[in-house]
Amino acid sequence: MLFPISPRAEELRDRVAAFMEEHVYAAEHEYHDYVDKQADRWCIPPVMEELKRKAKAAGLWNLFVPKHHDPDALSNVDYAIICEVMGRSPIGAEPFNCSAPDTGNMETLIRYATDEQKARWLTPLLEGEIRSCFAMTEPAVASSDATNIQTEIRRDGDDYVINGRKWWITGAPDPRCTISILMGKTDPSAEKHRQQSMILVPMDTPGITIVRPLTVFGYDDAPHGHAEITYENVRVPASNILLGEGRGFEIAQGRLGPGRIHHCMRSIGVAERALESMCQRALTRHPFGKSIADQGVTRHLIAESRMEIDQARLLTLHAAHMMDTVGNKAARAEIAMIKVVAPNVACKVIDRAIQVHGAGGMSQDFHLAYAYARARTLRMADGPDEVHRETVAKVELKKHAGANTGGRH
Amino acid sequence: MLFPISPRAEELRDRVAAFMEEHVYAAEHEYHDYVDKQADRWCIPPVMEELKRKAKAAGLWNLFVPKHHDPDALSNVDYAIICEVMGRSPIGAEPFNCSAPDTGNMETLIRYATDEQKARWLTPLLEGEIRSCFAMTEPAVASSDATNIQTEIRRDGDDYVINGRKWWITGAPDPRCTISILMGKTDPSAEKHRQQSMILVPMDTPGITIVRPLTVFGYDDAPHGHAEITYENVRVPASNILLGEGRGFEIAQGRLGPGRIHHCMRSIGVAERALESMCQRALTRHPFGKSIADQGVTRHLIAESRMEIDQARLLTLHAAHMMDTVGNKAARAEIAMIKVVAPNVACKVIDRAIQVHGAGGMSQDFHLAYAYARARTLRMADGPDEVHRETVAKVELKKHAGANTGGRH
Amino acid sequence: MLFPISPRAEELRDRVAAFMEEHVYAAEHEYHDYVDKQADRWCIPPVMEELKRKAKAAGLWNLFVPKHHDPDALSNVDYAIICEVMGRSPIGAEPFNCSAPDTGNMETLIRYATDEQKARWLTPLLEGEIRSCFAMTEPAVASSDATNIQTEIRRDGDDYVINGRKWWITGAPDPRCTISILMGKTDPSAEKHRQQSMILVPMDTPGITIVRPLTVFGYDDAPHGHAEITYENVRVPASNILLGEGRGFEIAQGRLGPGRIHHCMRSIGVAERALESMCQRALTRHPFGKSIADQGVTRHLIAESRMEIDQARLLTLHAAHMMDTVGNKAARAEIAMIKVVAPNVACKVIDRAIQVHGAGGMSQDFHLAYAYARARTLRMADGPDEVHRETVAKVELKKHAGANTGGRH
Amino acid sequence: MLFPISPRAEELRDRVAAFMEEHVYAAEHEYHDYVDKQADRWCIPPVMEELKRKAKAAGLWNLFVPKHHDPDALSNVDYAIICEVMGRSPIGAEPFNCSAPDTGNMETLIRYATDEQKARWLTPLLEGEIRSCFAMTEPAVASSDATNIQTEIRRDGDDYVINGRKWWITGAPDPRCTISILMGKTDPSAEKHRQQSMILVPMDTPGITIVRPLTVFGYDDAPHGHAEITYENVRVPASNILLGEGRGFEIAQGRLGPGRIHHCMRSIGVAERALESMCQRALTRHPFGKSIADQGVTRHLIAESRMEIDQARLLTLHAAHMMDTVGNKAARAEIAMIKVVAPNVACKVIDRAIQVHGAGGMSQDFHLAYAYARARTLRMADGPDEVHRETVAKVELKKHAGANTGGRH
Repeated sequence: MLFPISPRAEELRDRVAAFMEEHVYAAEHEYHDYVDKQADRWCIPPVMEELKRKAKAAGLWNLFVPKHHDPDALSNVDYAIICEVMGRSPIGAEPFNCSAPDTGNMETLIRYATDEQKARWLTPLLEGEIRSCFAMTEPAVASSDATNIQTEIRRDGDDYVINGRKWWITGAPDPRCTISILMGKTDPSAEKHRQQSMILVPMDTPGITIVRPLTVFGYDDAPHGHAEITYENVRVPASNILLGEGRGFEIAQGRLGPGRIHHCMRSIGVAERALESMCQRALTRHPFGKSIADQGVTRHLIAESRMEIDQARLLTLHAAHMMDTVGNKAARAEIAMIKVVAPNVACKVIDRAIQVHGAGGMSQDFHLAYAYARARTLRMADGPDEVHRETVAKVELKKHAGANTGGRH
Repeated sequence: MLFPISPRAEELRDRVAAFMEEHVYAAEHEYHDYVDKQADRWCIPPVMEELKRKAKAAGLWNLFVPKHHDPDALSNVDYAIICEVMGRSPIGAEPFNCSAPDTGNMETLIRYATDEQKARWLTPLLEGEIRSCFAMTEPAVASSDATNIQTEIRRDGDDYVINGRKWWITGAPDPRCTISILMGKTDPSAEKHRQQSMILVPMDTPGITIVRPLTVFGYDDAPHGHAEITYENVRVPASNILLGEGRGFEIAQGRLGPGRIHHCMRSIGVAERALESMCQRALTRHPFGKSIADQGVTRHLIAESRMEIDQARLLTLHAAHMMDTVGNKAARAEIAMIKVVAPNVACKVIDRAIQVHGAGGMSQDFHLAYAYARARTLRMADGPDEVHRETVAKVELKKHAGANTGGRH
Repeated sequence: MLFPISPRAEELRDRVAAFMEEHVYAAEHEYHDYVDKQADRWCIPPVMEELKRKAKAAGLWNLFVPKHHDPDALSNVDYAIICEVMGRSPIGAEPFNCSAPDTGNMETLIRYATDEQKARWLTPLLEGEIRSCFAMTEPAVASSDATNIQTEIRRDGDDYVINGRKWWITGAPDPRCTISILMGKTDPSAEKHRQQSMILVPMDTPGITIVRPLTVFGYDDAPHGHAEITYENVRVPASNILLGEGRGFEIAQGRLGPGRIHHCMRSIGVAERALESMCQRALTRHPFGKSIADQGVTRHLIAESRMEIDQARLLTLHAAHMMDTVGNKAARAEIAMIKVVAPNVACKVIDRAIQVHGAGGMSQDFHLAYAYARARTLRMADGPDEVHRETVAKVELKKHAGANTGGRH
Repeated sequence: MLFPISPRAEELRDRVAAFMEEHVYAAEHEYHDYVDKQADRWCIPPVMEELKRKAKAAGLWNLFVPKHHDPDALSNVDYAIICEVMGRSPIGAEPFNCSAPDTGNMETLIRYATDEQKARWLTPLLEGEIRSCFAMTEPAVASSDATNIQTEIRRDGDDYVINGRKWWITGAPDPRCTISILMGKTDPSAEKHRQQSMILVPMDTPGITIVRPLTVFGYDDAPHGHAEITYENVRVPASNILLGEGRGFEIAQGRLGPGRIHHCMRSIGVAERALESMCQRALTRHPFGKSIADQGVTRHLIAESRMEIDQARLLTLHAAHMMDTVGNKAARAEIAMIKVVAPNVACKVIDRAIQVHGAGGMSQDFHLAYAYARARTLRMADGPDEVHRETVAKVELKKHAGANTGGRH
């Protein structure tokens, strides 16, 4: 392997892969079937708690934790290759307590929470006893520009009072979801990037209403889901603020990098699995007298998929390595690039795999249609492609600021 | 308008468009909400029966019927422009009794059924009293090559006995679905294209089991749906055979052309609506201080979408015109081309519209995600893209058979 | 044929096609070889004058002339299908006196010149005795925005005096090039679109210097070519102005439509020829034990090419038909669309044909590499793709101005 | 830097980059102008010999030599990053004695030549005193499949006698080209991959005729060029055979890997330079009232280019690293992948840069059009894209041989 990946990470990756083979893939049907059979789809499939117990017992637990928390923690590059393996299954991250948005929330608490806040929320999250959500996006404004966010966090005595409407709050409908990190405005008159704050809001606080679940291409993603939520005079102690008023953007920035590596490596994992399915189907299906692998454009698409996946993986590991060595800020363009590249590659590869599978590929019989919907979502999550391309272009053009070109050069 | 479209067709198109504006778009929510609220999603939303009554009363009924049935019927080009308008809504064709697979089945009955068969099944279909399905695809074989189909239709005295498994039988779960046209093998020892027959199978015949509904990117398409069905010793009178044993391929060929025009024009309709939504959203949403229409790649994508839609429409009308003038057989390449072009254009345009809508575009709040799933399905229905490209290439290469090239020419 | 193409046009198209087969393709080598063997490449290959004589004798002459000039002239749609055939060869238009920029210049003179101007320049152009150029683009400014043009046309007594630098003046190095239509500024203080004028400048006027020929991907396009030209105190009579001072933009607009149809149809002609070459090569070349047509992605690319060409042709004919029926202004978006679509399709199809030809496809042995360079040029000529996409988007967005979107619709 | 690149390589890369800045870019015009002004374009521009002297004096000489030749030589990864810098200029490799096909020929001689052969040809090549060519491709057969090659190498006493026709023999027209390595058939009756041999053929041997130069998109690439050559009874001593009869394929395989890394890294170098030009032009050109960088699709294309270049570079370095660690054979798929990816990325990026430059981008005034032609050539050289995609697909499918897929997994 080309990158400075530690032998320990490779060993963990292999153990996670073995765990996936032994326990996780086999549980996919059971997990979804359990949900489908409940009157209330917002339930806890017992098989998941079982998987968590097994993974915890095997020491494959909280591998995501950053070096801030534990000096022995894995580097971003090290964790990335493990994350890819988990990403192969839609239920692949939770058994290891490594699923979004909990990982991002735990990182945020590790970096910015007080000891009291940590004891109350971080500890049970790290134990996998509760889950969490991150409440940022709003239906009324273009949230790709976070300065647009309107939810009010108003100081009132020793409390903050929250009013607003959020949507796409992933994980909120999960019955185990106990705590949310909410972003809103504490001071609309402050300088543009100092108006926002983040605050801890327990999900059982009066005034919080989960209005409805949102679907993604027809999937409700139960039992995890994506909620639209209203906040009406939701009152929390002032001590729930993170880092202090006006620090919302600062926290958002710090939170960004690792989560993107995780999302992107999981995308690559699912793309890799889709390519495997495509090859297997192409070899075993024989319309018109020969295998699909021997027909038309199939080999071309397999080759394209391999080339795209390998490039996306190298680019993501490269970004992770930059984060490990020069930091998130210097890796700004690289982190933006992978956010565009990896989900798009996943969408393309899965789409081709679906096409090779025929109509079945779009149905519940294969992992592909659901994988497509999840990968497609990532072209939006944390900003649409267009916003990240803009970042890449800005960094690129900056290199030539003041440049004056002439002649042949 | 460039094509030989009759003033009558233009007038009908305008009336259908007005009906859509007045009645259909407004009913979309009600229709889907009704289904979502039933314990059994395979139900009949009253609003649809109401829409049918209104359209029938307005004389906007059965506009698809071919000249075989009625010398005053619309030409393929004439009906095409009306079909586009209906295609704008997922519930846009049924009010006019113009929805698949009923139209294809009615055409089949018009062309190939006996008077007795027509009286029993065609008349109530034309009246919109019953619905129907077409049972061809099988899970065990690559059905894009119809010679692979294995369902057995065995003669037994005055009956045929059917055994097999079908899937993707669209419309079968609809409670009004009363009759199916099934394709299977009557004589596995016959010449390759004479083994297959088509037969009328009432849906209440003992031995038919709807095993389960299939989903498409998470959508069950209720109350219409796509069923997996088993046939165990399903016995129907021998008189139910269409045209005679071994004529299955002949019927399949005759059935193909118009259905493709319909599918493609509906795809163009939905693409056109998506482009409208994209423009409207781009003009009214303002992240980063200006409208999305004024940012990045938006105008580029709007222009690309317009160019692709206009080209796809012209190509489809051109194919329809060829069917009207030189016949389906001579238009073979053209009919194959539109089957590739139109659904792919729809997928691309809808995908861009989703991206402009942000996360909401993937949800139930806009018509886009569901439209994407339906357009994506059409890249499979009636053969995947790859099969149709193969047809186009074959026709193209045939022009040069025996050709010998040399020199600069 | 789908469009309202007259039988006369079809007959002319067939005669032009027969002339191409009999005389033009065979002359391609001779034409280029003659140029390659001259010390001065800016020469007149005798074979071209011979071809002109033959075409004129056959009555295949000046078919481009618009109805302004001759009520019996062909419509835009009618001429378009003939233009496609001429476009198949890089020397295919001149034999019929239908080559750019002369056709555009003749149209301009027909519409805007005085009788005296016509007698002096239009008549010999229509006879094919002289050639002409159009001097607009300038190296110092972004000429895709014509308001940037800086060349000075200063009134001085009964004369105008011209100073400036132009480039990409196609046809200027041709020894037969006698007259130019030059665009420049007569009044820099006027309203933005009234600053510019067009004026007739004989090429032998003192002060005109052809600085150098420009190459296009290594081709100098001799003997026609593209010149960089300086104008130093070039003095012409005031009567040489076209239509009057400040009317330059108005003339430019009037000139645009037909020229684009011509360029686009010629692009389609060359794409069609490239597809033929691709098919022939694919059938007759056998690496790895079977024909290229039976390998990999070849059939896919042939099918894609056929679909793209047919769509581009329909779109161009549609634009021509709109020009014929509702006028250039109402067809603004359509004329912009074809300018993007047709050259890009030609580039794609030719590129694929080159790839099928192997290394030879890039060389002088086939018509493809030169065809690619010419098609690539058209993505710039008369404004780059990006400018035309902007026009398409502007027209599209205008439809929704003031629109307010909501709900599912 | 992510890869195991040695500090020595980085230091050499920086010195080569400085040399390019100081000497090479500035010499581009002089080099091409010299050639353009000679009666015979197959000449030696003095500036190149001057550059060679300077680079040699600076110790920047023969950096390509492999570890076979010199244990202190650079690894493939180390040389790769230097190669990228040289690739930025069309005259960037020769000053350092690192240009194709000499590097490939020198490697071949290092690995397979006898001491006598080395003394005669390798030494002067390493000194930069002579140049060489590699004669493999033939016009009559599809040479992407090397088994098709027909040139006859017949044993006759102590000699071999060669008869055949080759083309695309790069560097043959160079007046300094003294020696060729020719591939042909010694035994047409042998097993398929044992029929071919390689033999050293001095260019002044009687019977060799350079028939003509081939052009690439209008460029003759003088003074280096690509020749069509006939061999008529060309007689060379039997001792000129390399490695022995029937070993041609074996040598061809050994030769492949490093050359591809070089080609690909040079492609990335030229793409990087094109992106720089694109940014600079976009910032300094202002049509329609703002910079091109602030308009339409420009930033999108800059971002796409950066993402594609970075991915291509990482993929190529990854392939180089695999060659360094697991060997050329195990890196077979990776070497095939970069051969597709890098030239295609270069073509795309250069094409976009041209578009941003307007018409000038296609001309001799910028490095872009010539860069495009050279990058486009690489999509053919050493096998077209399609052949390499086939290799990638074959390796991928092999992983699943015997696989049987089922269920959701």
